[in-house]
Amino acid sequence: MKFVIIGGDAAGMSAASRTKRNRPEFEVIVLEQSQDVSYSACGMPYNIADPERSMEDLVVRRAEVFIEKNKINLLTGHRVTRIDRKAGKVIGVTQDNQAFTMAYDALFIATGARPHVPDVPGIDLPGVMPLKSLAHGKKIKVFIDTKRVKKAVISGMGYIGLEMCEALRARGIAVDMIKPGPIFLPWMTPELSQVVADEVTANGVNLYCGEGITAIESVDDGGLMVVGEHRKLPADLVISASGVTPCSELAVEAGLETGIAGAVAVDAMMRTSDDRIYAAGDCADAIHVVTGEKCWIPLALRANRAGWAVADNVCGKEIRLQGVVGTAVFKVFNMQVARTGLSLQEAREAGFDPAEVVIKSRSKAHSHPGSAMIHVSMVGDRKTGRLLGAQMVGTDGVAHRINAPAVALHAGMTVADFIQCDLGYAPPFGPVWDPVLTVANQLIKKL
Amino acid sequence: MKFVIIGGDAAGMSAASRTKRNRPEFEVIVLEQSQDVSYSACGMPYNIADPERSMEDLVVRRAEVFIEKNKINLLTGHRVTRIDRKAGKVIGVTQDNQAFTMAYDALFIATGARPHVPDVPGIDLPGVMPLKSLAHGKKIKVFIDTKRVKKAVISGMGYIGLEMCEALRARGIAVDMIKPGPIFLPWMTPELSQVVADEVTANGVNLYCGEGITAIESVDDGGLMVVGEHRKLPADLVISASGVTPCSELAVEAGLETGIAGAVAVDAMMRTSDDRIYAAGDCADAIHVVTGEKCWIPLALRANRAGWAVADNVCGKEIRLQGVVGTAVFKVFNMQVARTGLSLQEAREAGFDPAEVVIKSRSKAHSHPGSAMIHVSMVGDRKTGRLLGAQMVGTDGVAHRINAPAVALHAGMTVADFIQCDLGYAPPFGPVWDPVLTVANQLIKKL
Repeated sequence: MKFVIIGGDAAGMSAASRTKRNRPEFEVIVLEQSQDVSYSACGMPYNIADPERSMEDLVVRRAEVFIEKNKINLLTGHRVTRIDRKAGKVIGVTQDNQAFTMAYDALFIATGARPHVPDVPGIDLPGVMPLKSLAHGKKIKVFIDTKRVKKAVISGMGYIGLEMCEALRARGIAVDMIKPGPIFLPWMTPELSQVVADEVTANGVNLYCGEGITAIESVDDGGLMVVGEHRKLPADLVISASGVTPCSELAVEAGLETGIAGAVAVDAMMRTSDDRIYAAGDCADAIHVVTGEKCWIPLALRANRAGWAVADNVCGKEIRLQGVVGTAVFKVFNMQVARTGLSLQEAREAGFDPAEVVIKSRSKAHSHPGSAMIHVSMVGDRKTGRLLGAQMVGTDGVAHRINAPAVALHAGMTVADFIQCDLGYAPPFGPVWDPVLTVANQLIKKL
Repeated sequence: MKFVIIGGDAAGMSAASRTKRNRPEFEVIVLEQSQDVSYSACGMPYNIADPERSMEDLVVRRAEVFIEKNKINLLTGHRVTRIDRKAGKVIGVTQDNQAFTMAYDALFIATGARPHVPDVPGIDLPGVMPLKSLAHGKKIKVFIDTKRVKKAVISGMGYIGLEMCEALRARGIAVDMIKPGPIFLPWMTPELSQVVADEVTANGVNLYCGEGITAIESVDDGGLMVVGEHRKLPADLVISASGVTPCSELAVEAGLETGIAGAVAVDAMMRTSDDRIYAAGDCADAIHVVTGEKCWIPLALRANRAGWAVADNVCGKEIRLQGVVGTAVFKVFNMQVARTGLSLQEAREAGFDPAEVVIKSRSKAHSHPGSAMIHVSMVGDRKTGRLLGAQMVGTDGVAHRINAPAVALHAGMTVADFIQCDLGYAPPFGPVWDPVLTVANQLIKKL
């Protein structure tokens, strides 16, 4: 078996390593266009925040280890340009401009996602940078370390934009954030997103929602000027964080099916419409467990899990993934933000008859020192009583709390089922009724 | 409807309040033998640890509020001595030695549990104290505040003993702990209980397991001497924390069925063998969701939830509780300890064919500052693949993590189901694969 993997990031390297563990006799070739494999992309903002830490800390395993210890034929600097399904091979070019071809018995497209680049004059100026690859992260860090960066503008207010805003503030850089969409965290219930927005602005960051960038200009002193629809924002550094797009071009050109958001369409075994070709990670879609419909939610755990599933399936184990519930957590300044499942709006769009409750609760027991406010929302379906989603914001004890409703979503629990759950209680960790139970106790009255 | 409740703690007051909310026209009488209702018993060790805080901080709602605002006929200082089922009334005596009788249409036994008092000479000496009621807590705190307490012995090593050991150390008191059982935290997998034991001894506490106390003696300087089987331990204060016993005497004398550990036997609606009489809270048993068998696990959340269920059932709503999975968390010094479901040994005793895996994982992402070691065990059934239990110990991010497997136990998930769960990930909060998933990924290989 000759198993060729395009892309050496989370999904690709997970699949490569597991395939060699399962079946050491398989030939596993990974074609990675960059020089970097197996690094913690999500850790980049935290690393950039700390001038004492090296970007190399983020590398989990070096290419040589995969080659020598795992016996993976890992070829960095190899960019695939075409898949020839009929011939069962991929065609590409190396960083030295050498053409190559590689035959496969099984192929895995793990090409990930790329930053969406807004079509704006000046987006390619030096000092305007996205953050997706390790190379991007290094470039931003070197720029901050070596230039006199006093002011930055971040285009976009997603997870990466917000994490970068905290990182830049930690480096003493003034930050403005701007995006064309009118609503800050549009997937979040308004009461909760306001808490996050307040935390960001309390840390000296200006938020300009509903304002597109029309141009980025070079100015005389060597700096930049971000021209918005209603204002001009001077900057020494511009972070372009306007979301990501699946890298599905190779799949499209090879005639494979794509679906939602242009991601490669896969079944529960991660097979594309060609059963010798798998796709997974940020370039591929998934079933949303709550809606039963396809979705594209590019997150790290799914990429790793799906990479393993591909490996097992290539090795003949027949692993089917149930799908995702869209659980996501992030931190911005002191605020922890978490979500799982559907928002009220998403639930409506998916055809449910949803009800939502928003509560405030304490993170620790009555009168326990260090107890902080947690804002929690929960959404359930009036027709079936089913739990559909939950969101949470607070400075203490938010992130791990979201996993209880996340598991309940996988189990298809009703809100009434969830209320019965025997969760842990001790005064240093929560009230007797955990906030996720308190919100469920309120929600059941509306269903 | 005249609804009489014996006991004004968590279960009793939850039921009283909810009944009046459901049906304001119902007459609700609570007979409480002490003066204290609705206080955070679990918060007492933390309060005792802090000389600046008043014990009154633990009172959630004062008796007058229940009486005036909730219109509950709350009678403190009223001890019930007998239930006359035939006549449908309870008989008792007040703190002023006045006899009383009270007729009921529905009766709720919420008498809780009492500290187990070892049959040892000197157990009744001044300076030997249990910790269960608020009166106990106040007595201990006054004793520490007013006497020169330099050395304490704690008899017992359960949650309360360990929480008190931390509290006393915080007050600068030297602590020895002693118990007859040979194993520290016998319900915990040995690798994890060793981590907890190490934390306790690292904080200067001596642990003497496998050693019964034969006597407590008064010594000349006004102190105490705890006489163990192999040593004598001087003490200014002895905390008796050898577990609790359900207060089921009233039920037994009334001819109601009792079961495991002598607790009052109830069905899913909290009805005793007399369908006009309910029981719930620390005096009553429950179904264990994992084994399907009766168990007696007296914990606060269950007491509150069961109190609500009694209220709803008295009001005709027909609420059935699914049962408990034995989720419990506590903190001792910097260590967070959590469990849910069955240990390996408990699973064997319940007739499963269990396998266990113990792993070490990180509490935060690779290379993220503040990341600490978490020790996790998980138990599954070889025959059915079912998840049976999990345990966790660590200084960071343990307590709330236990709730994901707890929900999975309620849902009857297999380990293979649990592995599919889409849990949250961000570097400040965990690795990509949360420790509870990593342990499940290992466990599945053994099933």
